Amino acid sequence: MMQWISQSNILIVGLGLMGGSYAKALKRLGYRVTALARRQETIDYALEHGIIDEGSAGVDPALAGAADAVVFALYPGAFKRWIQQHQQFLKPGAMLTDVTGVKRCIVYDIQEMLRPDVEFIAAHPMAGRELSGVENSDDRIFHNANYIVTPTDKNTPEAVEWCKSLGRLLGFRKVSVLSPEEHDEMIGFLSQLTHCIAVSLMTCSDNRHLADYTGDSFRDLTRIARINEVMWSELFMLNRDDLLREMDVFINEFTALREMLAAGDAEGMREKMRLSTRRRAGFDKPPADA
Amino acid sequence: MMQWISQSNILIVGLGLMGGSYAKALKRLGYRVTALARRQETIDYALEHGIIDEGSAGVDPALAGAADAVVFALYPGAFKRWIQQHQQFLKPGAMLTDVTGVKRCIVYDIQEMLRPDVEFIAAHPMAGRELSGVENSDDRIFHNANYIVTPTDKNTPEAVEWCKSLGRLLGFRKVSVLSPEEHDEMIGFLSQLTHCIAVSLMTCSDNRHLADYTGDSFRDLTRIARINEVMWSELFMLNRDDLLREMDVFINEFTALREMLAAGDAEGMREKMRLSTRRRAGFDKPPADA
Repeated sequence: MMQWISQSNILIVGLGLMGGSYAKALKRLGYRVTALARRQETIDYALEHGIIDEGSAGVDPALAGAADAVVFALYPGAFKRWIQQHQQFLKPGAMLTDVTGVKRCIVYDIQEMLRPDVEFIAAHPMAGRELSGVENSDDRIFHNANYIVTPTDKNTPEAVEWCKSLGRLLGFRKVSVLSPEEHDEMIGFLSQLTHCIAVSLMTCSDNRHLADYTGDSFRDLTRIARINEVMWSELFMLNRDDLLREMDVFINEFTALREMLAAGDAEGMREKMRLSTRRRAGFDKPPADA
Repeated sequence: MMQWISQSNILIVGLGLMGGSYAKALKRLGYRVTALARRQETIDYALEHGIIDEGSAGVDPALAGAADAVVFALYPGAFKRWIQQHQQFLKPGAMLTDVTGVKRCIVYDIQEMLRPDVEFIAAHPMAGRELSGVENSDDRIFHNANYIVTPTDKNTPEAVEWCKSLGRLLGFRKVSVLSPEEHDEMIGFLSQLTHCIAVSLMTCSDNRHLADYTGDSFRDLTRIARINEVMWSELFMLNRDDLLREMDVFINEFTALREMLAAGDAEGMREKMRLSTRRRAGFDKPPADA
């Protein structure tokens, strides 16, 4: 599989923070990297900075047809529309993957509508920054992050192996395989719920006068409250059932703690804190070389 | 005021993480630092490691009577009991301060019961670690942290200045003055509410199998979920009215976001996220030299 990758001409569709970071990593590894972006300035910037070898604004049938592998780094809706409208340009035998943060709503639909002579193997690179755009792309964000491959019954073992190899080549700390359902449940809790909490903490009261007194706890808790509202509102809507369930579980637990406090049940609160402390120990960051 | 401090013999009562960190900072600055702790091993450790000049387990009338200034680094209840039972040993004219994380429930009571020939000026060093004990003390935790002085009508301007000087000498980034009421409202939101959220996020479901997939967002949000349950349950109980109010405000806001998601109101969610992003920008960390 590594050999297959080493012969590849890789097209990135969508050259934002994530697409740009993929391009940087792959070009550094010696691949020929091409890109399609919405705006010509994005392509110009990427060419000037040596992030890609060739690129085009809009859809270029020649670039699309020359790629052995295509990474779709688009928002979910835009990804589906691209496949619907332009898949005829893809090279027979091409391997497609993506970076989408939700999976059930994407993977089956794309595989359903896709030509039989190309294969789509979905992946979620769990990395990011509180910034967007190719100018802020940086493949070092992969180095301490997780890469999840989410195959379905329609995928070949070769595609799964290829996608895992890609994650390792990109420099991810850990490459895992989950079903789309397992992925969405996990991401609903670990990522989407945490973003909902951070946003609500920032918006629940006008707290600007408190900025002078802020410690690291509050800063850490709200770092992700600087949020790309277009992307995240779309991701929330596409994982609505899982996220609503996680939000309800959290509200119930938080309300239970509130009732303990209201009732003066200090021992109940201490028991919750002991459980929290034990569980959190299991989430400590592994050493960078693990 | 700086001169007054430079002549001082400073007693630390309670030699845990915070008391030990005060001792290290003050001793490095050249003060004579003594300490009282519950356990002899704590005193032995501090003497062996040069953290204090002299110390005693339990209450030592000679050490208490020799101190020009006393820092009470005890939990709130223990602080009150110490004053009730041992204040007769204090030197006339001594200046007392504390490190307690709640203020209304402490400051007025202590000032009410205190001898007229000593003065208590309250302060809250907003620094900490997810560890406890003198072995983990480290005065570098002060360097990017805030120090809040909370005077009342009973305090002299000299005491307020002395306490501000102490905060600056300890190396805090910023020294502020708030009323006990303003302090408790601020801390209810910035610190106690955030700890309640982090604990509830860890305890709301058995998430241990997700540790493999955890990214920085979740780790940052739950760092403070490793929590000293004895201290924090006491602090929560002593600021119950403010904390309950902040918890209710947060539950309402979080529930409103949940209802938007349930109703498919993507534009409502985006509006919340834009507000969150604008507000969070005001909380960015100031440069270390600010």
